[in-house]
Amino acid sequence: MDTVILSDWLAAQLDRGAAEPGYRQLLRLMQQAILTGQLAPGTKLPSSRTLATDLRIARNTVVHVYDQLTAEGYVLSSTGSGTYVADTRPDTAAVNARKLAPDPDLPASTASLAAPARCERGDLSARGQRLIHKAGVAPKQWGAFMPGVPDVAEFPARTWSRLQAKLWKDANPDLLTYAPGGGYRPLRRALSDYLRVARSVKCTPDQIIITTGIHQSIDLAVRLLTDVGDRAWVEEPCYWGARSVLESLGVRLVPVPVDDEGLNPREHDLQDPPHLALVTPSHQYPLGMVMSLARRRTLLEYARQHSVWIIEDDYDSEFRYGSRPLASLQGLDDAGQVIYVGSLGKMLFPGLRIGYMIAPEHLVDRFRTGVAELYREGQLMHQAVLAEFIMDGHLTSHVRRMRALYGERRQILIDAITAHFGAELPVMGDEAGLHLVLGLPGHANDREVTAAAYDAGVIVRPLTAYYHSEAHVRQGLLLGYACVPNERIGKAFSALAQVIEKTMVACP
Amino acid sequence: MDTVILSDWLAAQLDRGAAEPGYRQLLRLMQQAILTGQLAPGTKLPSSRTLATDLRIARNTVVHVYDQLTAEGYVLSSTGSGTYVADTRPDTAAVNARKLAPDPDLPASTASLAAPARCERGDLSARGQRLIHKAGVAPKQWGAFMPGVPDVAEFPARTWSRLQAKLWKDANPDLLTYAPGGGYRPLRRALSDYLRVARSVKCTPDQIIITTGIHQSIDLAVRLLTDVGDRAWVEEPCYWGARSVLESLGVRLVPVPVDDEGLNPREHDLQDPPHLALVTPSHQYPLGMVMSLARRRTLLEYARQHSVWIIEDDYDSEFRYGSRPLASLQGLDDAGQVIYVGSLGKMLFPGLRIGYMIAPEHLVDRFRTGVAELYREGQLMHQAVLAEFIMDGHLTSHVRRMRALYGERRQILIDAITAHFGAELPVMGDEAGLHLVLGLPGHANDREVTAAAYDAGVIVRPLTAYYHSEAHVRQGLLLGYACVPNERIGKAFSALAQVIEKTMVACP
Repeated sequence: MDTVILSDWLAAQLDRGAAEPGYRQLLRLMQQAILTGQLAPGTKLPSSRTLATDLRIARNTVVHVYDQLTAEGYVLSSTGSGTYVADTRPDTAAVNARKLAPDPDLPASTASLAAPARCERGDLSARGQRLIHKAGVAPKQWGAFMPGVPDVAEFPARTWSRLQAKLWKDANPDLLTYAPGGGYRPLRRALSDYLRVARSVKCTPDQIIITTGIHQSIDLAVRLLTDVGDRAWVEEPCYWGARSVLESLGVRLVPVPVDDEGLNPREHDLQDPPHLALVTPSHQYPLGMVMSLARRRTLLEYARQHSVWIIEDDYDSEFRYGSRPLASLQGLDDAGQVIYVGSLGKMLFPGLRIGYMIAPEHLVDRFRTGVAELYREGQLMHQAVLAEFIMDGHLTSHVRRMRALYGERRQILIDAITAHFGAELPVMGDEAGLHLVLGLPGHANDREVTAAAYDAGVIVRPLTAYYHSEAHVRQGLLLGYACVPNERIGKAFSALAQVIEKTMVACP
Repeated sequence: MDTVILSDWLAAQLDRGAAEPGYRQLLRLMQQAILTGQLAPGTKLPSSRTLATDLRIARNTVVHVYDQLTAEGYVLSSTGSGTYVADTRPDTAAVNARKLAPDPDLPASTASLAAPARCERGDLSARGQRLIHKAGVAPKQWGAFMPGVPDVAEFPARTWSRLQAKLWKDANPDLLTYAPGGGYRPLRRALSDYLRVARSVKCTPDQIIITTGIHQSIDLAVRLLTDVGDRAWVEEPCYWGARSVLESLGVRLVPVPVDDEGLNPREHDLQDPPHLALVTPSHQYPLGMVMSLARRRTLLEYARQHSVWIIEDDYDSEFRYGSRPLASLQGLDDAGQVIYVGSLGKMLFPGLRIGYMIAPEHLVDRFRTGVAELYREGQLMHQAVLAEFIMDGHLTSHVRRMRALYGERRQILIDAITAHFGAELPVMGDEAGLHLVLGLPGHANDREVTAAAYDAGVIVRPLTAYYHSEAHVRQGLLLGYACVPNERIGKAFSALAQVIEKTMVACP
């Protein structure tokens, strides 16, 4: 395309009625002509004056377009001699370098790497495909009976907002930049005070590390404590999110059964100590049983003797409706083997994204470095608001209020279950947490029930989705009651009960 | 210890003047006596009435302690027959299971796994040690001349606070719970509008995924697109944080040199296409050059032919002081090979922790699932505040104001360098970003200069810390000027210049 044709082509392409400004249109068209080769390298462009006249636009527009083309390397201009299309064609020798014979100087092993057998290029990796295929995350995060979600409508948003406004009024610049590894110190102090009393943990404020939640806490511990290929015990069933984090870090999962006393490793599990064990002793997720004291002591002693790291996920431990909350496993650990992780999302609101971990004293400096290195944390204003919220007593009073409310809702749901099914379908789990598990008969298919319930406007999660292997799955449904207003529980359960009955008739 | 001795021991241990309430003390002491075996399994405890009388405390306190001991499994109580210490001793057979001979029924390969050779048990893993050893994160995050930090004191905190207060006034519960994969939709729309104009990217709002920043964006892409052992090109030198994320996910790094035109792969690099390449085309980090158009086109064509994923980190691209910002690499990509990542931290304030990525259309659904599965995102209120901030025009006006300010500061720093060193020490990098690189002579040791500067109250980062291998390191200092008030630049540089001069005399 010579410059006369260029002017004609541009004149035809420019759309004077379009929303896109003339400058952008001209720039885009010139770039396109150069990238496609319509304007060959070395072509001299018309002067800005000529092109402006030809296109009947302001000369300044053309000058700016030429400047930008020069800055981006599309054209070369030298004062006096004009503006030329630069040679920016891809270097074909470089693009095709792989097709050359392997360099004879390279060692054989490297040369053989030059043509690896890859089937999945251009798509997700095997790791990525597994992750997405097994993903447990739900498309909807709210409504009857979404498990694991507290009632955010009950959160004292005005109190939070007042504390927040106070802190932002004269925002301290130190709180707007990156966080030092570990997080905002007053929050760490407030949390260690709270956890010592509420969860019987043993820790100093220095041992507390603020994270964005359970996921990040587990991610950090696993990156720092395991190598690719190491084995980790996970409870069977367990939380899908933790499983995805571990697996995508190259850790091999060893599912270990649970019974009424919690984690119950088999002989062959015990003979082959894992590198790490991830447990939910206060309230097994998702089944809800409490790990017995004898099992806790055995696990700690086993971990000590065989140098096994324990990650204690102290999930939902604040919400117990019968007895007082049980003490943490961490509080019994004398050997520095336990990494304790928890989150404030269920106590306050999930969108908060603030969690904490307690690292053993001999690891805490390196954990602090790790959290800053891997995640480049910030959010100190947010952490400062939370610290004030806790120190003013709002955390404990909100948890106390929610414990009463969720206990009521749990009872309403259990009454509805009993009214519909009598003792036919068992309710599993201790009196704690934000959900219960409704057992289904062995011939049922909980994924089908879940899909049918979704169509009927009720969200549940299938218990089988929480199992790693197919071998010992139990059929059941997780029903979250915490986020459902009291008066809606009965009606929503009626809808669900119809779906269950229909499905059970279909597969007798 | 029989029950009479128990009463005496408890009476001696209880500290009536202590801050710890009597209930907690008694509970802790009884637990301790049981855990240490002082109270053997099967021992009958005194009745609550007897113990209360012996200890001269309220009977109710003892009843509550016994209830809690029962709930936690320390004791067993049956109405009528009294309360007995439970047998919670660790199961020694389980603890010592590993010492048994391997099960002859297990296949040989499993049996051999039963006693793996591990040297590092009880400490960080090899992955963790490497991560902490190589960590690039600085202990201080603020002050002259901390690189990569904007001036947060200039952030319009009042505007932000006003928008925030408005949204929190009647907090929408939907914004307090977990985020759907991808983030708050109006923010994604605002960002896609902004990026299309400012960065010439090609994307719809659906392709935008909100993350907590560059680290999380890279983490997600690498987990989904690579397997353990895959190779990734990284620029040499490059950003330490990205390197740590990649390495701890099991990816093998291939450092590729950069020259004045950006990434410059050698023949043997080209012969062995990587799975992924991480580049900073707009503004190489940390050296600051711009990738030429020819190199961009070559990289894209090479990536297309050999199915190489490209992660484009569009770092600091908003802050250019000479020419207009250059277009993104993503905007030239027709093959869906580029994952574009960026962050708002440098534009607004680092503590914000909101970033974004643009996924190719054929991957975006799976990326959205991945972000929800791996990180369980929330922070929708925060995202909503940011969306309003952008839509009201505050982002562009703040960036415009900061661009002028940082340009001034850059010039003041360059003038100070020239006044002290003339042309003796080169200033590297294009006129862009929040820092510049001051080259040091080859015989200098930039880590030593950094340490000496720190002692003199000036923060700099050594250029050599950004190199992966030792082979081609250049000595230099990263000086961040953006966060230093104009009037402090000269004085801080004088202090630094003294340190540099002293060190250069020491090693001639």
